[in-house]
Amino acid sequence: MSLRHFSALLLCLPLCAMAADGNALVKTNTKPKNLVIMIGDGMGPAYTSAYRYFKDNPETEEIEQTVFDRLLVGMASTYPARESGYVTDSAAAATALSTGYKSYNGAIAVDTEHKPLTTLMEHARGAGLATGIAVSCQINHATPAAFLSHNDSRRNYDAIAESYLDSDAQVLLGGGQRYFSDALLTRFRDKGYQTLSEFDQLDGISSGKVLGLFADVQLPWAIDEPQAHKLSKLTAKALELLSAQEQGFVLLVEGSLIDWAGHGNDIAAAMGEMNEFANAIEVVEQYVRSRGDTLMVVTADHNTGGMSIGTAGQYKWTPEVLRTLNASPETMATKALANEDWQQPLAQQLAFAPSAYEYAELAKARMQGKDVLESAIKRLIDVRSNTGWTTGGHTGVDVQVFAAGPASSLFNGHQDNTDIAQKLLSLLPKAAKKPVAATPEVKTDTQAQPLKEQVVTN
Amino acid sequence: MSLRHFSALLLCLPLCAMAADGNALVKTNTKPKNLVIMIGDGMGPAYTSAYRYFKDNPETEEIEQTVFDRLLVGMASTYPARESGYVTDSAAAATALSTGYKSYNGAIAVDTEHKPLTTLMEHARGAGLATGIAVSCQINHATPAAFLSHNDSRRNYDAIAESYLDSDAQVLLGGGQRYFSDALLTRFRDKGYQTLSEFDQLDGISSGKVLGLFADVQLPWAIDEPQAHKLSKLTAKALELLSAQEQGFVLLVEGSLIDWAGHGNDIAAAMGEMNEFANAIEVVEQYVRSRGDTLMVVTADHNTGGMSIGTAGQYKWTPEVLRTLNASPETMATKALANEDWQQPLAQQLAFAPSAYEYAELAKARMQGKDVLESAIKRLIDVRSNTGWTTGGHTGVDVQVFAAGPASSLFNGHQDNTDIAQKLLSLLPKAAKKPVAATPEVKTDTQAQPLKEQVVTN
Ligand SMILES: [Zn+2]
Ligand SMILES: [Zn+2]
Repeated sequence: MSLRHFSALLLCLPLCAMAADGNALVKTNTKPKNLVIMIGDGMGPAYTSAYRYFKDNPETEEIEQTVFDRLLVGMASTYPARESGYVTDSAAAATALSTGYKSYNGAIAVDTEHKPLTTLMEHARGAGLATGIAVSCQINHATPAAFLSHNDSRRNYDAIAESYLDSDAQVLLGGGQRYFSDALLTRFRDKGYQTLSEFDQLDGISSGKVLGLFADVQLPWAIDEPQAHKLSKLTAKALELLSAQEQGFVLLVEGSLIDWAGHGNDIAAAMGEMNEFANAIEVVEQYVRSRGDTLMVVTADHNTGGMSIGTAGQYKWTPEVLRTLNASPETMATKALANEDWQQPLAQQLAFAPSAYEYAELAKARMQGKDVLESAIKRLIDVRSNTGWTTGGHTGVDVQVFAAGPASSLFNGHQDNTDIAQKLLSLLPKAAKKPVAATPEVKTDTQAQPLKEQVVTN
Repeated sequence: MSLRHFSALLLCLPLCAMAADGNALVKTNTKPKNLVIMIGDGMGPAYTSAYRYFKDNPETEEIEQTVFDRLLVGMASTYPARESGYVTDSAAAATALSTGYKSYNGAIAVDTEHKPLTTLMEHARGAGLATGIAVSCQINHATPAAFLSHNDSRRNYDAIAESYLDSDAQVLLGGGQRYFSDALLTRFRDKGYQTLSEFDQLDGISSGKVLGLFADVQLPWAIDEPQAHKLSKLTAKALELLSAQEQGFVLLVEGSLIDWAGHGNDIAAAMGEMNEFANAIEVVEQYVRSRGDTLMVVTADHNTGGMSIGTAGQYKWTPEVLRTLNASPETMATKALANEDWQQPLAQQLAFAPSAYEYAELAKARMQGKDVLESAIKRLIDVRSNTGWTTGGHTGVDVQVFAAGPASSLFNGHQDNTDIAQKLLSLLPKAAKKPVAATPEVKTDTQAQPLKEQVVTN
């Protein structure tokens, strides 16, 4: 670096600091045309660190960097509105990330008085941008819902699904068939949407609006379909469809099931979901690097499970077992229950032979049904990998922020999750500075079904 | 921001990236004159997040930012040399931070073949800078030792203490009287050191070399002496003494006991130590802001305890109890054992009245002695605050990096702990680029005493 360049650097340092307030850039022509927001649900700092060691090739001397290492720029606090304490749920966190305001746990883009808060997607639409989502949970789950809907409660799945008719999103990709009746799908088609239910149908779509629901609720665990790369493919298709939009676009991508694995204290599924989310990030990173007009910001909504890399006083984490197993504990338990001859197939799925003691423990658990057996398999993998957990819920540790593309330095250093939204909003075209009217109605399901997925507060 | 300024920003962004390799700045005259490295031992991301909520004033609407929020610039991976797996101890981590090289757990500035690695302090001395340390553990504990000594094993406390005679450090402040015999202290005085054993004596020192040992082993828990602010005062005195050095200085400050509280799964003591470390950081921050010639870099060596903000499925963390208690669980247990009338005094120290059930549990524990009672008090506080733990040891999550002053942007984004050392080395004056000969002898204690502090691998 020459002295002349260095002088420019010296000049720039205070300016970088100025830019970090999130508003300094909006008057210039360097705003990105497109925004891609990617959320690893539940992906606290231990997940990205663990993923590095999970991916490490022990044959090489160095420990290879991951896409997270490459893109890290800062961190964010995640606490909800004061009435909900210091630990957020996905709804309040997604509301903060989509609107720039804190709300209560359970809120879907409404404030603490249950009034709608204008979302980034609404601002974007007001400025003429196209919008879309690609997620691995049901598309009406808390995170995407807080970007596309308004509701008193994340549990009003049916009302949220119906509200998407008015979201004007170009691209809606994920799971959730059970929430979209044939009658509702017809109404989407009447609005111009192509509706898909099979993953292969995606190849046939190259333009227009699309609602693709590829699972009853969430997509399968990535570890059960290691070659499928569904989230990556949904992400690539969303980018392809939205790229056709003259005015630019805002795309939300969520690695939703990292959180589900965390709730289940399932390190095997968690690393599989981390891998698939990392793949999706690399798809977007390549798009960002090749175009120069797109900003990507990756973060988590909160941490899940209190997972720790090492536990029980031992200074070790041994992810070798995680690198070779080839099914989720859920799938292992299901298969082991369905067959009398379960020990050998289970060993094949685990890619190691349990000890006699471990087999005895598994046999005892198997007699108590699938949930107990699944837990026993997860605990076996925890012991083998020396993974710790503190909760089936969320924890309050700050999460990381990753970014690339124009204005990505806005996200350097510490910020609150609401700051992330405010910075993104500051990058939208001028028209978006006038808030568009948010959908005034906040609908509630007439019958809130106590589905398994509803009982767990993700 | 004007367009002209913004052009400079655009120009600067790629240069910032160039500077991030840690070598781009060394040819310029903007190197800081002084370096202050601050290590929060065991201070993983959950500690700084928890500290924010611990310090929050619930009477105000906003949650106040902390010094950590103000200074955050990046994160660092902490894994040791491959032979020690993915989870580091304090010795290997401090070796990485002081030499730029990975080594095995237990190594004190020696490589995996047990050969001495030149430390930042030795490079600094070779370049004519003064050096010093201010820590809250014994000064010959792993972290300071890896900056000032070389040894096969962190457990060789006596050899490490003796080796400090050759360290040429101007300032040695902390605990550890038991490792410095009268004969050894005399040898330090023969080398020109003023030797102190009482905290008040610090006021009488305004120049020259000083060895101050203010506790048998570590300093008292900050929570037991809330007005003492010993680490802050040691830090301020070290800055005062080192500021007299014409050629500049390198100072290491360690908030050592955060780690000890983490090992003990003691959230009350941990928040007290975090508070004292934050105070010390603010002392340095003020120095950095007022002078303009000093770089401060704050990080952790690793995470301890797998502490989580929320546990047991509950979406809450309630630090209220931590804000009002006025003694460490260790002190509470000691006092409760010494008095037959223990319940009321314990309630006063806790600043809440345990329930009848809780009292009964404490009474049972009290009959089993101090350690069991202390554990029971810690668990009571965990339940009241909803704090989780996974281990009495370390975990492998990445730690944060905080910085201010000239060249602080070098530390932006992700880096390895060895990169931190390499960046710091790149900022030393030219003379330091030639490695000075490291102390060739690696001494071992003739009799390694199995002290309690040695048994715990901190
Ligand atoms: Zn969740
Ligand atoms: Zn430790």
